[in-house]
Amino acid sequence: MADPYGVPQAGAEAPAMPALRWEEPPEGPVVVLLDQTRLPAEETELVCTDVPALVQAIRTLAVRGAPLLGIAGAYGVALAAVRGFDVAEAAAALSYARPTAVNLAYGVRRAVAAYDEALAAGGTVEKAAAAALAEARAVHAEDARASARMAELGLELLGELLPGGGHRILTHCNTGALVSGGEGTAFAVALAAHRAGELRRLWVDETRPLLQGARLTAYEAARAGMAYTVLPDGAAGSLFAAGEVDAVLIGADRIAADGAVANKVGSYPLAVLARYHHVPFVVVAPTTTLDPETEEGALIEVEQRAGHEVTEISLPHVYVGGAETGVALPVTPPGAQAYNPAFDVTPAELVTAIVTEAGVVSPVTRDALAEVCSTSRFGKSRSGNGMMAE
Amino acid sequence: MADPYGVPQAGAEAPAMPALRWEEPPEGPVVVLLDQTRLPAEETELVCTDVPALVQAIRTLAVRGAPLLGIAGAYGVALAAVRGFDVAEAAAALSYARPTAVNLAYGVRRAVAAYDEALAAGGTVEKAAAAALAEARAVHAEDARASARMAELGLELLGELLPGGGHRILTHCNTGALVSGGEGTAFAVALAAHRAGELRRLWVDETRPLLQGARLTAYEAARAGMAYTVLPDGAAGSLFAAGEVDAVLIGADRIAADGAVANKVGSYPLAVLARYHHVPFVVVAPTTTLDPETEEGALIEVEQRAGHEVTEISLPHVYVGGAETGVALPVTPPGAQAYNPAFDVTPAELVTAIVTEAGVVSPVTRDALAEVCSTSRFGKSRSGNGMMAE
Repeated sequence: MADPYGVPQAGAEAPAMPALRWEEPPEGPVVVLLDQTRLPAEETELVCTDVPALVQAIRTLAVRGAPLLGIAGAYGVALAAVRGFDVAEAAAALSYARPTAVNLAYGVRRAVAAYDEALAAGGTVEKAAAAALAEARAVHAEDARASARMAELGLELLGELLPGGGHRILTHCNTGALVSGGEGTAFAVALAAHRAGELRRLWVDETRPLLQGARLTAYEAARAGMAYTVLPDGAAGSLFAAGEVDAVLIGADRIAADGAVANKVGSYPLAVLARYHHVPFVVVAPTTTLDPETEEGALIEVEQRAGHEVTEISLPHVYVGGAETGVALPVTPPGAQAYNPAFDVTPAELVTAIVTEAGVVSPVTRDALAEVCSTSRFGKSRSGNGMMAE
Repeated sequence: MADPYGVPQAGAEAPAMPALRWEEPPEGPVVVLLDQTRLPAEETELVCTDVPALVQAIRTLAVRGAPLLGIAGAYGVALAAVRGFDVAEAAAALSYARPTAVNLAYGVRRAVAAYDEALAAGGTVEKAAAAALAEARAVHAEDARASARMAELGLELLGELLPGGGHRILTHCNTGALVSGGEGTAFAVALAAHRAGELRRLWVDETRPLLQGARLTAYEAARAGMAYTVLPDGAAGSLFAAGEVDAVLIGADRIAADGAVANKVGSYPLAVLARYHHVPFVVVAPTTTLDPETEEGALIEVEQRAGHEVTEISLPHVYVGGAETGVALPVTPPGAQAYNPAFDVTPAELVTAIVTEAGVVSPVTRDALAEVCSTSRFGKSRSGNGMMAE
């Protein structure tokens, strides 16, 4: 292939603004999002003053990625509470905005539990709202810490799996600072390898239909000065066949009790290719992504998204005559049906290891996962919610 | 998944115009192409009055697909000969327009051999040109016959492999009338199944980066009234896992002597998925795609295409202020590298069967392929070129 190991792009900057932040301007608190649908062309903020706006941002993927959805869910509850809206209604709307990422409902439950506890302890509505906000901040900070720890553990694991160094890592979708309170999940491990001088190449699946790899992972890799190359999802097979992939690193949206991993559609084919080529397939996810209540992979609800994401090229932010408008250009003939699941499910037997902040699970078994869950429950007992989903 | 077996679209028309035809208007002979870069939005003709125009059309994929490239190559030689251009120069330019599809060089050689023989037999330049054109017409007609025969044999094979009927066929890229003098290769088999009432669903990989599946296969399937569904290439894994794929049918651009199959990038991952899920993986290709001179798959030259096909969304035919212009919208950050091989290579051990017009090869072995090659050489001996590439 032509020069796959060329010089990386210049620039080693952090993203210009955080993916999500809480702000309290005079006119009232808001959740401010970096609009990910506009990246990398534009770094635009989306200011949510209420929960319906945040739900819309979640549905349109302006804010996305399992860990960040947990943080967004928690701040969403806080936003409703602080602004005096119905907290239970807000919680329900947020929880069901997208069905697959378990973190979303987890973040919502954490903030709701803090709110309810404060009320039950005789606190005022204001005190309860403050408790919800404090809990959202805790979820946020915990995720940042989890991200840092996963990066450490993941880098160690790569060293063990690939003692030769000079890792050529294939990744799918986007799992960096844009999905996290910290530097992300799988991407954080690749970034740690880059900083340690151990990353030879990050192969970035473009990740159809919404191109989160080409748009977002490439954006984060370019900013970090990493050596990266974007490819059509179907070209990963050639890379494996040519011996150009040392390991696959992906994130997760939900991990069932049996170790089955729901992640962005296209992950499962990589797992099968990795197995066929004897390449490690590593999942990096905080314990908030573990879902012991879903017994097995087959029970994970996979979000089916609209067919037009496949049948049209959507240009949502085009300026015509000075006004912004959306343009959708059909690719297929009129009336074409599309199959457009947002995720697929990879069974545990194809997963070499799951890296969490509470430890590396390998081999991936029901018991080992249950143990990591219980460890992490102890580790976070101060949050006091005792939920299984931790 | 949501209604994967819905009602097929209305309409059962043949494509509006042939993919390629020879015409002789008063101002001189021309090769007329259906411009495939504009489908399905527009059915536009591209009129090539000389070989450079045809070479450009081949490079930009206005005309594409292994069998059709063979036909285009032969007519290209005839065009140069009839119009009095340098035939050897035209043959070289055509042969090297794209490197992977063996049919292109094959078609060129057939027409050149006819031209040279006519001259050697003492014919005039006009007679030799007429011989080249007659040979091009023969290549065209043979491909149409081969297509019909492959459809028959492929349908029989499906009946043997899948005795339950109601086939759910997954295909990749485009292999119908748009690539053929007849109804194509893999698509012709699916079409035969449809006509026999045996096609339950045609799953159409969109086929990034150039979306030949979403644009062209969907166009042909819709016109034929087939039940079809388009999917992102990465979503095929979910279909296999859900047991929704009974067989994979693809075409080929070159088949080496060891049975390795070069086809559109993304084919190899399907072969690995098919193996993992015990689903037949069937290649449909005329014997003109067999290349006994390439000893093994590793020796097949794979065309590397420009990175911008991956890093940009290209809208080549946009009208601004009444004038046609091209618009390319960047997807990735500036300077992103892309890995963009046009093809990948699937080893024989992953191929259940190769359906040619001279018979079905299964299991795929070097000897069985050599036998089909020799059969087909006898069958076509009247063309008199005796070339191994037949």
